[in-house]
Amino acid sequence: MMVHLSIMPIGNDSHLSEAVAKAVKVIHDSGLDYRLTPMGTLILGDWQEVMPVIKKCHDTVRTEHERVITQIKIDDAKDGETSFDRKVRSVEQKAGIEFKK
Amino acid sequence: MMVHLSIMPIGNDSHLSEAVAKAVKVIHDSGLDYRLTPMGTLILGDWQEVMPVIKKCHDTVRTEHERVITQIKIDDAKDGETSFDRKVRSVEQKAGIEFKK
Amino acid sequence: MMVHLSIMPIGNDSHLSEAVAKAVKVIHDSGLDYRLTPMGTLILGDWQEVMPVIKKCHDTVRTEHERVITQIKIDDAKDGETSFDRKVRSVEQKAGIEFKK
Amino acid sequence: MMVHLSIMPIGNDSHLSEAVAKAVKVIHDSGLDYRLTPMGTLILGDWQEVMPVIKKCHDTVRTEHERVITQIKIDDAKDGETSFDRKVRSVEQKAGIEFKK
Repeated sequence: MMVHLSIMPIGNDSHLSEAVAKAVKVIHDSGLDYRLTPMGTLILGDWQEVMPVIKKCHDTVRTEHERVITQIKIDDAKDGETSFDRKVRSVEQKAGIEFKK
Repeated sequence: MMVHLSIMPIGNDSHLSEAVAKAVKVIHDSGLDYRLTPMGTLILGDWQEVMPVIKKCHDTVRTEHERVITQIKIDDAKDGETSFDRKVRSVEQKAGIEFKK
Repeated sequence: MMVHLSIMPIGNDSHLSEAVAKAVKVIHDSGLDYRLTPMGTLILGDWQEVMPVIKKCHDTVRTEHERVITQIKIDDAKDGETSFDRKVRSVEQKAGIEFKK
Repeated sequence: MMVHLSIMPIGNDSHLSEAVAKAVKVIHDSGLDYRLTPMGTLILGDWQEVMPVIKKCHDTVRTEHERVITQIKIDDAKDGETSFDRKVRSVEQKAGIEFKK
């Protein structure tokens, strides 16, 4: 399954990137296939692989902040995606556009 | 922590309530404190209590559908909510309005 | 269409209910049919009715905070819901449970 | 502001990329700065610029499907992002990792 993760500490300054960086480090060290995007992190894996990593991310941020909002969006298909790029390219081709980089 | 759960099967007819009903039955049978809302289900509990129930909900719907989108929003605060109603009443009072039922 | 709205100011203390209360007051004064839930506000109406009200909510919170995360989930069906309760009852009936209040 | 958009038609087959492609074509033709990601599309712009484009995307998909779920997440900061890449790089640097491509 493909998972979109967003972790937001509440109650501190408005620059969230340090808290987010700690969570991303946890994902990086997990060895799971992931991709950073400007508004969240994508992870590929089974529930049993991904969820303990997300819990560790959440706990890491929660330790340092009074309140944390964690959002998890799971896309689980029988013919499950195994590639971040294929999904984007499929849309690009059908839209008849090239990816803006 | 308070959790908002939304489970959406893709690829069948547009009446989702039967799939949702099976997931809600799983939550009901778990014994956790929960609340149905028109666009999702709220659950109160710790990560270790709530997440296995959500996995069971997801798996139940996934068994019968080719693709499932599950969204989990976790609000985890040090002075964590233990009541669905208190959170709503606090906003109502500050807004100086009465709840429209 | 039925819309779920969540507005979160970032960068101040972790008690969000005052900011949320101001946004809810805007919705209340709009005359649109709405429902407070513990993790968001539901609104019924067309895009042209609902979106200007949401913009006003967002701007009201944004004026007082450096950063605001606003989340809008729109459920737009041909046989569109005109009642918050019917959607919940339909799930309850299919799940064979009674609503926990 | 930076906006994350996800449009999901319900009630047809489970391959959503054709509906999504039509929405992406609308964004592409708008001239706004955007970025496709595997689970949504990011758009940069003011409310007045972005929202009419999102409405057009939603209506385009809605015309061909009985039901559409559209999700909009708005990140609106005083020192608003004007670059998709800067946000990702800031996190990468703080995490001490290099972007996995």
